[in-house]
Amino acid sequence: MANSKYGYVKRFEADDAVLPECWIVVRLDGKGFTKFTAAHGLAKPSDERALSLMDRAAQEVMHEFRDIRIAFGESDEYSFVFHKHTALYGRRASKLLSLVVSLFTAAYVRFWPHCLPDTELQQTPCFDARAVCYPNNKTLRDYLAWRQADTHINTQYNTCYWALVNSGKSGKEAQEYLKGTQTAFKNELLYREFKINYNELPARFRKGSVVFWKPPTSLDPSSRSQKHALMVQHEDIIKDAFWEQYPHILS
Amino acid sequence: MANSKYGYVKRFEADDAVLPECWIVVRLDGKGFTKFTAAHGLAKPSDERALSLMDRAAQEVMHEFRDIRIAFGESDEYSFVFHKHTALYGRRASKLLSLVVSLFTAAYVRFWPHCLPDTELQQTPCFDARAVCYPNNKTLRDYLAWRQADTHINTQYNTCYWALVNSGKSGKEAQEYLKGTQTAFKNELLYREFKINYNELPARFRKGSVVFWKPPTSLDPSSRSQKHALMVQHEDIIKDAFWEQYPHILS
Amino acid sequence: MANSKYGYVKRFEADDAVLPECWIVVRLDGKGFTKFTAAHGLAKPSDERALSLMDRAAQEVMHEFRDIRIAFGESDEYSFVFHKHTALYGRRASKLLSLVVSLFTAAYVRFWPHCLPDTELQQTPCFDARAVCYPNNKTLRDYLAWRQADTHINTQYNTCYWALVNSGKSGKEAQEYLKGTQTAFKNELLYREFKINYNELPARFRKGSVVFWKPPTSLDPSSRSQKHALMVQHEDIIKDAFWEQYPHILS
Amino acid sequence: MANSKYGYVKRFEADDAVLPECWIVVRLDGKGFTKFTAAHGLAKPSDERALSLMDRAAQEVMHEFRDIRIAFGESDEYSFVFHKHTALYGRRASKLLSLVVSLFTAAYVRFWPHCLPDTELQQTPCFDARAVCYPNNKTLRDYLAWRQADTHINTQYNTCYWALVNSGKSGKEAQEYLKGTQTAFKNELLYREFKINYNELPARFRKGSVVFWKPPTSLDPSSRSQKHALMVQHEDIIKDAFWEQYPHILS
Repeated sequence: MANSKYGYVKRFEADDAVLPECWIVVRLDGKGFTKFTAAHGLAKPSDERALSLMDRAAQEVMHEFRDIRIAFGESDEYSFVFHKHTALYGRRASKLLSLVVSLFTAAYVRFWPHCLPDTELQQTPCFDARAVCYPNNKTLRDYLAWRQADTHINTQYNTCYWALVNSGKSGKEAQEYLKGTQTAFKNELLYREFKINYNELPARFRKGSVVFWKPPTSLDPSSRSQKHALMVQHEDIIKDAFWEQYPHILS
Repeated sequence: MANSKYGYVKRFEADDAVLPECWIVVRLDGKGFTKFTAAHGLAKPSDERALSLMDRAAQEVMHEFRDIRIAFGESDEYSFVFHKHTALYGRRASKLLSLVVSLFTAAYVRFWPHCLPDTELQQTPCFDARAVCYPNNKTLRDYLAWRQADTHINTQYNTCYWALVNSGKSGKEAQEYLKGTQTAFKNELLYREFKINYNELPARFRKGSVVFWKPPTSLDPSSRSQKHALMVQHEDIIKDAFWEQYPHILS
Repeated sequence: MANSKYGYVKRFEADDAVLPECWIVVRLDGKGFTKFTAAHGLAKPSDERALSLMDRAAQEVMHEFRDIRIAFGESDEYSFVFHKHTALYGRRASKLLSLVVSLFTAAYVRFWPHCLPDTELQQTPCFDARAVCYPNNKTLRDYLAWRQADTHINTQYNTCYWALVNSGKSGKEAQEYLKGTQTAFKNELLYREFKINYNELPARFRKGSVVFWKPPTSLDPSSRSQKHALMVQHEDIIKDAFWEQYPHILS
Repeated sequence: MANSKYGYVKRFEADDAVLPECWIVVRLDGKGFTKFTAAHGLAKPSDERALSLMDRAAQEVMHEFRDIRIAFGESDEYSFVFHKHTALYGRRASKLLSLVVSLFTAAYVRFWPHCLPDTELQQTPCFDARAVCYPNNKTLRDYLAWRQADTHINTQYNTCYWALVNSGKSGKEAQEYLKGTQTAFKNELLYREFKINYNELPARFRKGSVVFWKPPTSLDPSSRSQKHALMVQHEDIIKDAFWEQYPHILS
């Protein structure tokens, strides 16, 4: 930046570097997406095309910022996990979260016509973002488990809610009907009343999307194409199996 | 957010609310725009269409966040000033800066075809953002003066640089030639060698863009259309005249 | 600090410099002083000697840190106001608050025998501290007014409470009796029942202590002795009069 | 605190709670102790009585704040390690560091006559303090190793320096003589010139002081007296042996 007698105002900028050796999670969340979704006539409770667009934007972010080891998305939110040793932008929280949310949003708008070719973008979408530190693997995995448990709870609830509404109940009646009910009750309701087997819903709806780099193979660990391949899965990341299968993510 | 045994991880989120009664500036800055500009064949040193797109995106942001009193843009950066009494999102820095940068970027991509109809978007652009507090009008005005002084210094330098390059010098030679030169020298160079009168360059290039709400008129202070009208100007905001003409901005 | 391979741990220290051009208030507060007071048999509700000791310690702090412009004390708390332009220790909050609370506590213990010669120190006293920024004179003065209003409210309440207790009521009964009562009622109670004219209580009890540097005189503004003289008063600092009389404090 | 219309100023206080699940180190450091030491004629380079006083004050702090698991002191500094799960004062950095430094300083002044009975306190001593987070055992142990390595380096240097000065060199000459020398050279110098075997200096000088709670015994783990017993040692805490012997400290 050019120098002038006004340059002293730069001293008002605070240092917001985050603690070393902690995992840094940047989580994005759509602003006013209930309205945004309705305005574009997206499917309820989940729209496969819109979710694919989220995944597409997430991959754009991960290709740009290679220190992101894993990302998890559901509904209108996405979490990106920077490696605990990243030195990117001096670990400044505002730099990391602003670049991630900006690139994600740009990709979301840019690739909208690819994923929703028959739906014109009517409004300018936007996302908020925050950066959170987790000091060890346990708390990081609990963070990701928290988001995936949220996916399940929300999807099950919303599937019931929209089934009730589509069968003639008002939104308020549906809400009242579901208040305080447990998982087993909701599964039963879906099955008995609406012939929906919750466990047969697309995995993307029930598990969200997990995006990570393909593990290096023993045959050719240095292969460029391998190293740069992203995997998008809709698997359980709460249990140990996933982490035992892909130990390179947290290593 | 749905509840689960993992919900404790929310406690790792830090409170980043900024000091009350301070002006909050959110400044965006294009990431890698030298390359981005070259990839799209934009005019050097300034591209009127690209600057118009920045102004267009800035207006989208101001229409959404009414507590922004004034914005200033130049080149690939834009600063937005939230009123010192704003209570938006509890004054949390990450919320404010992420929403502004996300909406700005989304609008930038969405309106690209309107402002640059003959240039296809080849890359996903992105911006970083930071939030800075200024505790009084003096420091806020010095901040804005800092950015406008920067506009002048950069535009004058870049105009010389590209004139030299376009006349056959290499980039390195041009840089060497201009090293340590003063304003008067550069004006003289432009005029003598290239018949460019610096002061006749478009005001947008020399002064940047200042965006603010039209002041209420005495005739009809409550007129909705008036209140919602944004003005985009390319005037001096360093001297007092501008602030005396529009006292409502800082009031 | 000596260098070694472990020196990298210094990078975990966060920068906690506070915003420039804001007044910095460091407020100390006695930890567990209800018990501490009882253990030493101090007078209820206010002990002149103990308050003098607080003032003595405050002066020690102000003699050491000349950028403190004014201090205000009541009961077991003291607030110190660093000038908004202070550059002391790079304005790092932890440096400023730790040095102030450490020196204050040291002086409190050191000068205890001077102020309470007949009472042996039985326990090690300690104070917590925090640093708070105020961006303008209005909010700083409101802060000081807040503390002085607190002094009045507490002293009046405690005077009533102890008068009731000393006249035979239990602590619980006294509390119940005073619950929700207004200023006028309490003044009346003191006067009618206990022949105490609240306004004749020592000003130190009702107004707290305000400590500041003697203003420079026109006769000899550079006189060293004058410049280094501290004034301890028990005056109203809520109204304008005090600030009009001593404009040098905030200048 | 009593309520009044000024109470809004409390909103200017920032939340400074530190990240959960991190070790919290509060380090104190004497302000101007070179002068303070000289003013009281303490022994050079290390004064056993003054170091004992530091250890005494540290024990006072640990008896008050039971979540401190270990402390390490050398020269005029002391570090206190709060357990990573402590919830004390909501983990607010300013609360923790101010209470520790205040209590430490109070104890330092209070117990001065016990440890230095023949030396009257001439000045009010004070300490600064900071709080630093360490996210795992490795970085915490490296922090403590950093301080103990510092102890060795400083003590060896200072022992040489004062031996040279006491033998007739000026301070500047001694400094010049030692500039850039290695450990082996300094040990040799002490031994050859001054008949000092560095390794026979008191362990307190070479290793500093480590203070921690006695481990629970299998015979009577709930014995109150045991649980409340502090150990003060001058042992190596850089190597693993100490931590293997006392695994309860970090558990």
